[in-house]
Amino acid sequence: MANAADFLGDRWMLLVLRSALYGVSRFEDLLGELKIGRSVLSARLTLLVDAGLLERVTYREEGDRSRAEYIPTQAARELLIVFAAMQQWGDKWVRRKAPAIRPRRRSTGEELRVVFATTDGEIVALGDVTMR
Amino acid sequence: MANAADFLGDRWMLLVLRSALYGVSRFEDLLGELKIGRSVLSARLTLLVDAGLLERVTYREEGDRSRAEYIPTQAARELLIVFAAMQQWGDKWVRRKAPAIRPRRRSTGEELRVVFATTDGEIVALGDVTMR
Repeated sequence: MANAADFLGDRWMLLVLRSALYGVSRFEDLLGELKIGRSVLSARLTLLVDAGLLERVTYREEGDRSRAEYIPTQAARELLIVFAAMQQWGDKWVRRKAPAIRPRRRSTGEELRVVFATTDGEIVALGDVTMR
Repeated sequence: MANAADFLGDRWMLLVLRSALYGVSRFEDLLGELKIGRSVLSARLTLLVDAGLLERVTYREEGDRSRAEYIPTQAARELLIVFAAMQQWGDKWVRRKAPAIRPRRRSTGEELRVVFATTDGEIVALGDVTMR
């Protein structure tokens, strides 16, 4: 977990990774979405590629030079539940302006929650959870 | 979520808060646990108190001067699922040395997982989850 904290515990890495997971994958689109400096974005993307969380892919639109796109790896895709848990917490404890992106079941579109469950699939209330 | 990132996206805030949630509440114990400088710890604790995540309580052992203890608020306790989700991810994707602290059901001690579920309590596989 100290290792997860190594990159989650950096505000920009976290926001870059989240945007990539939510489908913003091109350098220029990330720049626009995050209101971040080019060099900061570039450095964070390199770190995320080195950490095995993003894969750098080049693409080229007709008549244009080739550009980089950053695709989340399986390890990154499995961080979705961490982001969803953060967002769920923010929805409850931080006053928000805009309705947020939320986790949904792909097949039906219904909204999902992040919960604790036993290995048998029984959902357990937070008050009955302890870390040890 | 940018607001959650404001404090989760700071490695020390995140680690201080996690330790407090796992039951390390005294200044001197946090110092020993985190191998952190006094002034860094002190600054992060102040920020976490100001953010409404820790409550500063003074206690005094017999014959000793009064000292500060930092108790997680309800908002902080509800971050447990975020930390548990991070840890679950680390257990899978980062090689670990020591067996980690894990979320358990208080009443039975059984180990728990963090999962996505519908509001009806049906567990949904990660591959069937999208953010939008």
